[in-house]
Amino acid sequence: MRHNPVSVAFVSIATLKGHAGRKVDLRGWVFTKRASKKILFIELRDGAGIVQTVTARETVGDEHFTEWASLPQESSIEVSGVVREEPRAKGGVEIDVQEIRPISRPTAEYPINKPDHSPDFLLERRHLWLRSKKQWAVLRVRDTVFHEIHAFFRKEGFLHVSAPILTPAACEGTSTLFGMDYFDQGKAYLTQSGQLYMEAAAMAHGRVYCFGPTFRAEKSKTRRHLTEFWMAEPEAAFYELDDVMALAEGLLCHVVARVLAQRRDELAILERDTAPLEKIQPPFPRISYTEAHALAEKAGEPFPFGDDLGAPQETAISKQFDRPVMIHRYPTGVKAFYMKQDPQDPRFVLCVDVIAPEGVGEIIGGSQREDDLAALEKRIAEHKLPKEAFEWYFDLRRFGSVAHGGFGLGLERTVAWICGREHVRETIPFPRMLYRIYP
Amino acid sequence: MRHNPVSVAFVSIATLKGHAGRKVDLRGWVFTKRASKKILFIELRDGAGIVQTVTARETVGDEHFTEWASLPQESSIEVSGVVREEPRAKGGVEIDVQEIRPISRPTAEYPINKPDHSPDFLLERRHLWLRSKKQWAVLRVRDTVFHEIHAFFRKEGFLHVSAPILTPAACEGTSTLFGMDYFDQGKAYLTQSGQLYMEAAAMAHGRVYCFGPTFRAEKSKTRRHLTEFWMAEPEAAFYELDDVMALAEGLLCHVVARVLAQRRDELAILERDTAPLEKIQPPFPRISYTEAHALAEKAGEPFPFGDDLGAPQETAISKQFDRPVMIHRYPTGVKAFYMKQDPQDPRFVLCVDVIAPEGVGEIIGGSQREDDLAALEKRIAEHKLPKEAFEWYFDLRRFGSVAHGGFGLGLERTVAWICGREHVRETIPFPRMLYRIYP
Repeated sequence: MRHNPVSVAFVSIATLKGHAGRKVDLRGWVFTKRASKKILFIELRDGAGIVQTVTARETVGDEHFTEWASLPQESSIEVSGVVREEPRAKGGVEIDVQEIRPISRPTAEYPINKPDHSPDFLLERRHLWLRSKKQWAVLRVRDTVFHEIHAFFRKEGFLHVSAPILTPAACEGTSTLFGMDYFDQGKAYLTQSGQLYMEAAAMAHGRVYCFGPTFRAEKSKTRRHLTEFWMAEPEAAFYELDDVMALAEGLLCHVVARVLAQRRDELAILERDTAPLEKIQPPFPRISYTEAHALAEKAGEPFPFGDDLGAPQETAISKQFDRPVMIHRYPTGVKAFYMKQDPQDPRFVLCVDVIAPEGVGEIIGGSQREDDLAALEKRIAEHKLPKEAFEWYFDLRRFGSVAHGGFGLGLERTVAWICGREHVRETIPFPRMLYRIYP
Repeated sequence: MRHNPVSVAFVSIATLKGHAGRKVDLRGWVFTKRASKKILFIELRDGAGIVQTVTARETVGDEHFTEWASLPQESSIEVSGVVREEPRAKGGVEIDVQEIRPISRPTAEYPINKPDHSPDFLLERRHLWLRSKKQWAVLRVRDTVFHEIHAFFRKEGFLHVSAPILTPAACEGTSTLFGMDYFDQGKAYLTQSGQLYMEAAAMAHGRVYCFGPTFRAEKSKTRRHLTEFWMAEPEAAFYELDDVMALAEGLLCHVVARVLAQRRDELAILERDTAPLEKIQPPFPRISYTEAHALAEKAGEPFPFGDDLGAPQETAISKQFDRPVMIHRYPTGVKAFYMKQDPQDPRFVLCVDVIAPEGVGEIIGGSQREDDLAALEKRIAEHKLPKEAFEWYFDLRRFGSVAHGGFGLGLERTVAWICGREHVRETIPFPRMLYRIYP
């Protein structure tokens, strides 16, 4: 393998337009290739972008033309050439090649070379599949969604506070938890949510959020389940349910608007119709569980009053609207112990689920939290949870309790929605699922 | 407990200066309190800041004065009053109180009420300790360090790519790994580093970084060890060792400058002398292991040539400089298998450790990676590592291998250095150590 001379200043494909008419040096990989007798077209990718290079036999001579035309897919190369404006090209420019300097030729045929590989074949080669155009585009959208979630919370005065991954007690039963031995301290479990810790931090910092990996050891094998996924969880002191809903609405509008502003090219690669995304504007519809129940029945998806909504009900309801639907005040029995009961009607809790449009399903779940110690202890007894595991959590109600609330947003489901991808496994670099922990 | 009327617009203590001379409503917690016969001083904290409130018996009457003077530490309250400019006060203002409305009084004495609690006592109550002034300040600095690490990498064209937490093989032996059963797929282990995955992503995106929790099941009980800690790991295609060092230098200079610009008040709370931080400017000294060996000997901390540096050597060397020292090209035998051997002298590898000043020790470790398949296979055999676990990693050398490199920066050690804290356990919200996984 040849190493690059330090003296050459290489140009990023992302900035090529600014170099029109000038000679540049590029480096990257052979993405696609086609050749006629006289002309060789190599699409070069450098990670930041893709550009078409054009090599004319007449210009470079037979020997070079033949050598460069033999470069296999995913060869790493350096290219010297002149940037030519070409309105029909994707980035508006092409490269007229003067020289190609191979860095490293593949030692075998590149395995991803057909349009119809099976998902398992591709997932087994995820470390290479990442280089494919659509996968590349999805992770660039993910990057924007990730950063714009941070940007939104900063703008709203939320402090980033890391939630722990290793947690002591199995608060809600061990059946969906990954557990391991923790030295001589007994068992430790991988977190399912940073919420309880964020409640503690909100009493110190007012508004906080965590954003990191969370885990569910669920034996679900659906297009919407990962065992390891990222969740953004804001929590704010003095927030009531209406504040939680306004925050969720603001976050989704901000993120979608920023993706539309920054990632048009990637959405085009993904063949994503952006019209439904343009409609993501406030206000989102807010309907109670009771209204949702009636709406599902009217739409031909009835279900017993008091039960949780299933995917068919969520889809039937979300189809009635052109933006995310906020369903609030679910029955107490189907929701978590920490949600505050509705003082107007204690059959319900002050919670909200946000259902994304286009059949994506729930992407946010949140609530106002129970801030009364006695009520919280009662709920924990009803749920048959081990009281001693919650002693520190009770302290938050013993010392300066205030109304507070927050939510959790699933990053992969949000990216899947925005990218129009069917399966969340394509929205995370290295997906972990029931049957997959490699590579 | 009383809930707040929605109609009142509450003001954040962080923005009080803009309200001078006007009446405002605040809400938060009683932080400190002292009273004379005529005047009651309550420091109110709302998470965003702290302000002194002044209640005059003459203004509010005996009954109110007595009631409010009895409010214990960490009571949650609402305060109505007038913002008065007061140059001697920390934020430049005080509040002349008209009314205090208690929200919730503590049900017991607040446990953190002495200046000399033991570390164990405080760590056991970390959910409350977070409210203490210095802990509050440290996490605000951590927030800035966190965001400015992201900001720096974005500015440099690095894409955020999440590394997986659950990993399949125990690449470097299981002795310092947390392992668990992963359904019927065998064992899974918590990641110690996202580097190998970032190498795959760098071949797709050019420049990438991950920034998330990593784990070491080490039985170390020192002030510098956590079992769960956050690491930022950039990786870039076409980066050689000099590029890696320039990137590390740029990152540290950027982060320190931004903390100095944004967190002066917090550093003052922490009684951090900022003079050493002002000196963190490029260029950082770059010395080879061989030079470091001689320097340590001269400074009275000799060690056998070929051995790794210990804490005494790192401290002795870093004392010679007023900014971080970059020690490069360590002996092959003391460094990881994936580091590229120095073509000039194969006894050494193209690596760099960055030693922070003031006795903090190593905060960054990085290298140029071995990009030659045969050399990498040889190193893996020498290290007696299971070749089959690295098949996917070998693919990165089989298909378009290029020079590349990166590093890992430990967030907690960096925050400890910038904040001048002795122990990393104060720099993470919920520390996990050999004897601590609660709360």
